[in-house]
Amino acid sequence: MNTHVHADHITGTGLIKDMVPGVKSVISKASHSKADLLIEAGDKICLGSLFLEVRATPGHTLGCVTYVTGDGLDQPYPRMAFTGDTLLIRGCGRTDFQGGSSSQLYQSVHSQIFTLPKDTLVYPAHDYKGFTVSTVGEEMLYNPRLTKDEETFKSIMENLNLPYPKMIDVAVPANMVCGLQDRAAKA
Amino acid sequence: MNTHVHADHITGTGLIKDMVPGVKSVISKASHSKADLLIEAGDKICLGSLFLEVRATPGHTLGCVTYVTGDGLDQPYPRMAFTGDTLLIRGCGRTDFQGGSSSQLYQSVHSQIFTLPKDTLVYPAHDYKGFTVSTVGEEMLYNPRLTKDEETFKSIMENLNLPYPKMIDVAVPANMVCGLQDRAAKA
Repeated sequence: MNTHVHADHITGTGLIKDMVPGVKSVISKASHSKADLLIEAGDKICLGSLFLEVRATPGHTLGCVTYVTGDGLDQPYPRMAFTGDTLLIRGCGRTDFQGGSSSQLYQSVHSQIFTLPKDTLVYPAHDYKGFTVSTVGEEMLYNPRLTKDEETFKSIMENLNLPYPKMIDVAVPANMVCGLQDRAAKA
Repeated sequence: MNTHVHADHITGTGLIKDMVPGVKSVISKASHSKADLLIEAGDKICLGSLFLEVRATPGHTLGCVTYVTGDGLDQPYPRMAFTGDTLLIRGCGRTDFQGGSSSQLYQSVHSQIFTLPKDTLVYPAHDYKGFTVSTVGEEMLYNPRLTKDEETFKSIMENLNLPYPKMIDVAVPANMVCGLQDRAAKA
C-alpha cells in the first residue's frame, strides 16, 4: 500500500510482489501511476475484519492519501492514521515539486487529519530522530508548522531552501509503476 | 489507577472519587499506601471486555507497577503499556529517593517492558516536550539511558544531580492515602 509516489525512496512494492505471489499493490488514482488497485477518497480497503478508510491529502504530491483505520467497536482503538509524507512528527513533507502545494497540504491536514479524534495514532512515512508514532492531539498542539495560520505556514514552506532530491530522476519513474519494472525485467 | 506514589504531583484519585461516586482507587500493595484495590504482579484488572495485566516494575519507587493491555485477539492491538515513571520517552524516572534503586529500575525495564512486542505503545506518566506516546522498539533503540549496559546506567543515574522535589513533604503523605484525606475532611 503506497501513500504516494516518493521522490526520495523507491517503493518496496516490486520486492514484496516478488516475495509474496498474489500480493496486490495499491496507490491513488490521483497519483497517475500504475498499481493493481487504484483507490480514491472514501474507498474502504478491507483486511480480514479490519478496514482502512482512504482520505485524499494532497499537498506534498498531488496524489497523496492517508489511510485511517475504521471507526467502530470492532475496529482498533485508538484509531491509527498512516499519513505518508503529508503529516510528519513535528513536521510535514515539502511542497516544492511533484505537484506540491503548501496551501493544499495545509487544507488536507486541517480537514482530513486534525478532524480525527485527538488520541488517533499518527504513523508517518519518515522520521529522522527515531520517532515512529505521534498523535493527532500532539501535532495539533506542538507541530511547529501546522499550528500556524495558513499564511504563516505558506511562508515557512516557501523558505525551507531544501536541496533538490538527488535520486528524483531515478525514483519517480520507478515509483510511477510501483516498482513493477523490476518484475518485467526479470520476467 | 495509580502506577505509584508520586513525590512531585498529588494523585487525582480523591477528586475523581468525589466526582464519580462508586469509583474504586487502585495502587500496588508494594507501595504500602491506601486504596480500595491493592494489586500485585500477575493480577488482571478487567474493564468490560478488556483487561490490564499488572507488572511489577520497581526502581523509581519500590511500589511502581506498569499496566499492560491484554494479549489476545479480542484485546487491543498494538498492545499498550502504561509505564508511570519507570520508563519515560527517551528517559526514565529518578531513583534517588522513596526506595528508588537504579539497579532495580534497569532490571524492571529490561525484564518487564523490553520483553513486550516492539510495536507495544508506551504511554508514560510524564513528558516535558509534549510527547505522549512511544513504542518499546523505539526505546530499545533510542533511550539514551536504558540502551546502555547496567553499570553505565547506574553511573548515569548516580550523577544526575537533580534538585530535591519541592513538594515531597506534602505530596507523599497525600498520595500514601490516594487523596482520601480530602474526602474525610469534607465529610
